[in-house]
Amino acid sequence: MSETERIKRQILRALKLRPQTFWELINHQDGHIAAFFEALQSLLAEGTVLYQGHRFRLVREVELHPLADTLCETCGLGVVLRGYWEGIYRRFLEVTQDRPLPTSDYDQGFVRPVDTVRRVAYIYQRGDLEETDIFILGDDDLLSVAMGLTRMPRRVVVVEIDQRLNRFIQEFAQREGLKNLEVYDYNVVEALPDSLKGAFEVFVTDPVETRKGLRLFVGRCLEALRGPGAAGYMGFTHREASLQKWFEFEKFILSAGLVITDILRDFAIYPERENQWEHFYETYEIMRKLELPLPEVDWYKSSFVRFEVVEGPRVPEFEPPRDLRELYFDEESWATPLPSYLKGP
Amino acid sequence: MSETERIKRQILRALKLRPQTFWELINHQDGHIAAFFEALQSLLAEGTVLYQGHRFRLVREVELHPLADTLCETCGLGVVLRGYWEGIYRRFLEVTQDRPLPTSDYDQGFVRPVDTVRRVAYIYQRGDLEETDIFILGDDDLLSVAMGLTRMPRRVVVVEIDQRLNRFIQEFAQREGLKNLEVYDYNVVEALPDSLKGAFEVFVTDPVETRKGLRLFVGRCLEALRGPGAAGYMGFTHREASLQKWFEFEKFILSAGLVITDILRDFAIYPERENQWEHFYETYEIMRKLELPLPEVDWYKSSFVRFEVVEGPRVPEFEPPRDLRELYFDEESWATPLPSYLKGP
Repeated sequence: MSETERIKRQILRALKLRPQTFWELINHQDGHIAAFFEALQSLLAEGTVLYQGHRFRLVREVELHPLADTLCETCGLGVVLRGYWEGIYRRFLEVTQDRPLPTSDYDQGFVRPVDTVRRVAYIYQRGDLEETDIFILGDDDLLSVAMGLTRMPRRVVVVEIDQRLNRFIQEFAQREGLKNLEVYDYNVVEALPDSLKGAFEVFVTDPVETRKGLRLFVGRCLEALRGPGAAGYMGFTHREASLQKWFEFEKFILSAGLVITDILRDFAIYPERENQWEHFYETYEIMRKLELPLPEVDWYKSSFVRFEVVEGPRVPEFEPPRDLRELYFDEESWATPLPSYLKGP
Repeated sequence: MSETERIKRQILRALKLRPQTFWELINHQDGHIAAFFEALQSLLAEGTVLYQGHRFRLVREVELHPLADTLCETCGLGVVLRGYWEGIYRRFLEVTQDRPLPTSDYDQGFVRPVDTVRRVAYIYQRGDLEETDIFILGDDDLLSVAMGLTRMPRRVVVVEIDQRLNRFIQEFAQREGLKNLEVYDYNVVEALPDSLKGAFEVFVTDPVETRKGLRLFVGRCLEALRGPGAAGYMGFTHREASLQKWFEFEKFILSAGLVITDILRDFAIYPERENQWEHFYETYEIMRKLELPLPEVDWYKSSFVRFEVVEGPRVPEFEPPRDLRELYFDEESWATPLPSYLKGP
């Protein structure tokens, strides 16, 4: 999907809501004014849109959902789930009631259900959800389920190591009759299957935040992207990643030909109670440093970051870690549980 | 100000509110867990803070305002002005009632008063407002006035070309008895005075968005920064800057040794009515492309971007534009007014 293609769709779904002036419409799309003008001209030229009485209007039916806005009315910045999106959120809560709980074997932990659906809504706002091919590397948040409920993406492919999650998502897809939601058993240290390379317009991942883990997870995701205009989303914390690590990672992203378009601080919260991961704390590095009680508030948070391919992508060299210890641990992983297979006898 | 210094202050102002547990406190600061732990240890060691019954508490008085939170309660992302900040906003509205209006001679335009105060509150959230030295390049938003009302910064220096604004800010400072708010007549194409180089912990600017303008404005700001831990804030639009331009600019920022920590899309809105800039539209490039009415909604928006110095800063080479036309115009400046001195006879 080119940038122009994304802008066109943002325009069309806004017009499906109602005819709009130039100045209303520019607020419903992400392009700069020249690119917006070009997209409009192209829609006028191909006869999809008409300009009359200073308003643009749809001339023929388009297969898009009318714009379902999610901008927070209080502050104008965050995401609020109302109307259509409130319905998706309710259904998401229902269908994920019996989700598999996190296992320390894969450094898991899920964000609040509201944050998962808010992430999907933000991806939607940007024009990256509807009629796109989406690649998800690691899905303990069950983002694919929330996306599946919208029925908006053309295709969603989940690659995930945890077979419990994969079965859960597959059963959901079967129950809902979602033929375009595919799930594969996949360990990120293995090469990505050729059939998945260069096949997607969007990726989403929540990488392990060691230096090697970051490059490995996002490197695989970059391999999955199609070309200019494709977008990537990731969760990235300040809790276990220093600014030095952010700095190195941003250089990696830019060297791949992607621009960083959004960094939303503490967008997602990991709920202590729902994750039921009290026993994880036994092996956390931080618990050896200070006599600490188990958390009485949610404290693990994650920023939501969006990139967009400007050139390439050129996947930079990245080296898979030597072993799982190197994948999961570095000097900043103070709140990562020791997997059972790394514990002593 | 080092990163540790910032975290310490974020901790102290939170403790001034009330004693807090480790997990509460980590939510009120921006560092990663190891840096947070280090800052806490240092406060314990120097006897400012005590750890007792799983709570940290202040042992002696510190000269900081107790934390005045501004996180949006609806979505958890944006800024809401309540309590202390609502008071600042009210006063800001009062004291800026007779502000100078934008002139096309300097491509001016101000954001909504609420957005100016929200920017100050966001800078405050990050620990960049209180007891810091702040450099503002261009101040048609009157950010310095909002900052002055808080009385929190150690020093605020405004450099600005428009003498009407400078007089306005100076008169405000005099009326309020703010001796640490300084204003200088300054044209960005001139070299920065040596006395201002390397003297600040924070800069804020709303650059001209041509390629040359961006590098010129932000280059001057980088020269003003002190060293690692210093932070920069800027408004940056999608309206007149393509993603290609964002991409080049981000490479510039990273090459200077700064990491991008926040990108808040459409944080600020430029109000059409208050700016009274209807006549600007006569010379806008976009008005020649399509038969358009004057805007009936606010449409010019700007993202708020934060950087932090990780190394250096190393100020990259930047070349002042040949003339004012090159400063203000490139192929993407479709909503920039032609200054009077560039209009034909």
